[in-house]
Amino acid sequence: MKWEQVFASRASRMKASEIRELLKLLDQPDILSFAGGIPDPALFPTAAFQSAIADILSGPRAEAALQYSVSEGYKPLRDWIAGQMARIGVPCDADNILITSGSQQALDYLGKLFLSPRDTALVGWPTYLGALGAFNAYEPEYDRLDPHTNRTAADYADTAAAKGGRVKFAYMSVDFANPTGETLDAATRHGMLQLAQDLDIAIIEDAAYQSLRFDGDAVPPILALEIAQKGSIEAARTLYCGSFSKSLAPGLRVGWICGAREVIGKLVLMKQAADLHTSTLNQMAIADVAVLMFEGHVAKIRAAYRARRDAMLAALTTHMPAGITWTRPEGGMFIWITLPVGMDGADLLARSLQSQKVAFVPGSAFFADGSGRNTIRLSFSRADEATIGEGIKRLGILLRS
Amino acid sequence: MKWEQVFASRASRMKASEIRELLKLLDQPDILSFAGGIPDPALFPTAAFQSAIADILSGPRAEAALQYSVSEGYKPLRDWIAGQMARIGVPCDADNILITSGSQQALDYLGKLFLSPRDTALVGWPTYLGALGAFNAYEPEYDRLDPHTNRTAADYADTAAAKGGRVKFAYMSVDFANPTGETLDAATRHGMLQLAQDLDIAIIEDAAYQSLRFDGDAVPPILALEIAQKGSIEAARTLYCGSFSKSLAPGLRVGWICGAREVIGKLVLMKQAADLHTSTLNQMAIADVAVLMFEGHVAKIRAAYRARRDAMLAALTTHMPAGITWTRPEGGMFIWITLPVGMDGADLLARSLQSQKVAFVPGSAFFADGSGRNTIRLSFSRADEATIGEGIKRLGILLRS
Repeated sequence: MKWEQVFASRASRMKASEIRELLKLLDQPDILSFAGGIPDPALFPTAAFQSAIADILSGPRAEAALQYSVSEGYKPLRDWIAGQMARIGVPCDADNILITSGSQQALDYLGKLFLSPRDTALVGWPTYLGALGAFNAYEPEYDRLDPHTNRTAADYADTAAAKGGRVKFAYMSVDFANPTGETLDAATRHGMLQLAQDLDIAIIEDAAYQSLRFDGDAVPPILALEIAQKGSIEAARTLYCGSFSKSLAPGLRVGWICGAREVIGKLVLMKQAADLHTSTLNQMAIADVAVLMFEGHVAKIRAAYRARRDAMLAALTTHMPAGITWTRPEGGMFIWITLPVGMDGADLLARSLQSQKVAFVPGSAFFADGSGRNTIRLSFSRADEATIGEGIKRLGILLRS
Repeated sequence: MKWEQVFASRASRMKASEIRELLKLLDQPDILSFAGGIPDPALFPTAAFQSAIADILSGPRAEAALQYSVSEGYKPLRDWIAGQMARIGVPCDADNILITSGSQQALDYLGKLFLSPRDTALVGWPTYLGALGAFNAYEPEYDRLDPHTNRTAADYADTAAAKGGRVKFAYMSVDFANPTGETLDAATRHGMLQLAQDLDIAIIEDAAYQSLRFDGDAVPPILALEIAQKGSIEAARTLYCGSFSKSLAPGLRVGWICGAREVIGKLVLMKQAADLHTSTLNQMAIADVAVLMFEGHVAKIRAAYRARRDAMLAALTTHMPAGITWTRPEGGMFIWITLPVGMDGADLLARSLQSQKVAFVPGSAFFADGSGRNTIRLSFSRADEATIGEGIKRLGILLRS
């Protein structure tokens, strides 16, 4: 059977990610890897999950935990999230929350909700690779969202119209973004909100790393700034995507979308049709562990990751030659390196693996147009301080050679 | 914000299902309900899940259980499923299996893989409501798949072309189907396979109820018949969708797609972009419980549901007036009633709730064109035999009045 003849047109955009294929090769014991951007499993609250699930499955919630449940999600979990959102400036209630199977699913659903083929999504250059992957299924065009240029709303709208659609949303990873580690300041967030209003589009605010701030002052979510302007989440165009993957555990696949009820209601219908609901047991387990120890637990993992970031920044200062610059993230898992123009991150990786046994991710994968070849992403989340020091030292040797 | 202006065109097809809204109202203690088609939670292997998860989270798999994992799914679970598939005539290996978050997600992904707007999906009249919901997001046309007419492949192809696309797949629920309870016999399965070959389309074989056969001989899956013809799953056009929701527990959201590697490979990329992977912990728990007790457990639930089916069939024979017919399923959860022409299932439900406090689902919801008004679906999965007898008796009183 010639499958390509019966696949939908979108299937041609579903390709193996070079970077993900690459990451599989890097998972070898003799490699010092700063490539994967995943949590350190030694920091998972494993005992708390074990205890919570034992309690759920031995008590009055056991049958409900294993049964079908409502598409919008487990009410006590939505209530807890609404309480957390209120603390960061987003007063809302459970009806403003949809539970998703990780925030990756949130991005897929929002792409599905907004994008018809040839519509335009505004994304950063670079941006989260997984967002591009999720959106690609809906066959959009991309345009570069750059807070530091003076492109007008009319310019964005004209560019999108020339491509056969209209701008539907601006996607932004706001805190210690993957891949750059950078945080949008309040003025930039206000500017993005104004642009979205001028274009009459949605904002997808990806806050997956929000709870991992090590230092500096928290910047209010774009959704909070918008509610402060408009008085209510029901008037907001911002859809906030949160995740328990970086704070508690990714393997349970629990995240959320917070926004106006009108949009959440549509997304509930979408979820019902797409996978009915997120695992009932997992939602209960996340809710119980969050209620029990969320703040204390994230304080613990923040301290661990902060020490690793500090070790990496110190090692970069010591070992990097002139002409190389890097970001200084206030949280998260990533530092973004800009190499001299003309140097290629993918070539550097090949040489690094061969001569230094150090792995990282070439930056061009994070650019919708494949540019950014002189950039690389380092993650400090999985390595101890000594390994970080040694790995950056080796990278410095390579870059000086 | 006028959200409709920024939603994708597909959003107009995401509507609240009348039937699902109705089901919410029926969940009241004084109603005898044959409406919902969900498992009896008293039959869940709760203790086995509790023990499996305690073992996973206290042993060497704990960190992996809570960590990100590969999009194709947990290898020991795929191996176990491949072994089960071989037993029903589908020799294959783990690379032919994608783990999905329930078989609902399998239907969503297959709709996404095949359907561009205006393509045609062939479905039964009636068919599984949730399949229509999943496919609707990809804006297809529907045409009626009826094994009992002599429509030719050319006729189906011409009809699809007139609607602006082509036929992409035939979707069939093969065993004790939701909603009819009927099973396709081997001759019909061969006929469907021939039609699919003539049209050069895929077959989506929904086998969600496959393990719930009470009596009669098992009919080989369409995928097994096709492999017998062609020699290998790699040459097959049939994609088999399985589920643990009816056999073990739906709340963990674990199902699978079995098919040619070329298609599974594409679906792995789709899943990576859409939600990364199904909950690692849940896949491990399902694998452990399946290895431990799958056959014994399904034998137990088959016995329980068989008694309920027998009670419902006996009560129908006793209490239904002339002019009313029903199916005699060999398994599953559903009996399908055909009322006299002119009688309306929705009207009957309204009267039944008022005067008899008996609930069921009007059949027209299961027809892509809204026809079938003189049909209703009864589920016997959630009620004990005495309740079934009483409820059918009351329904008989109503139908004689």
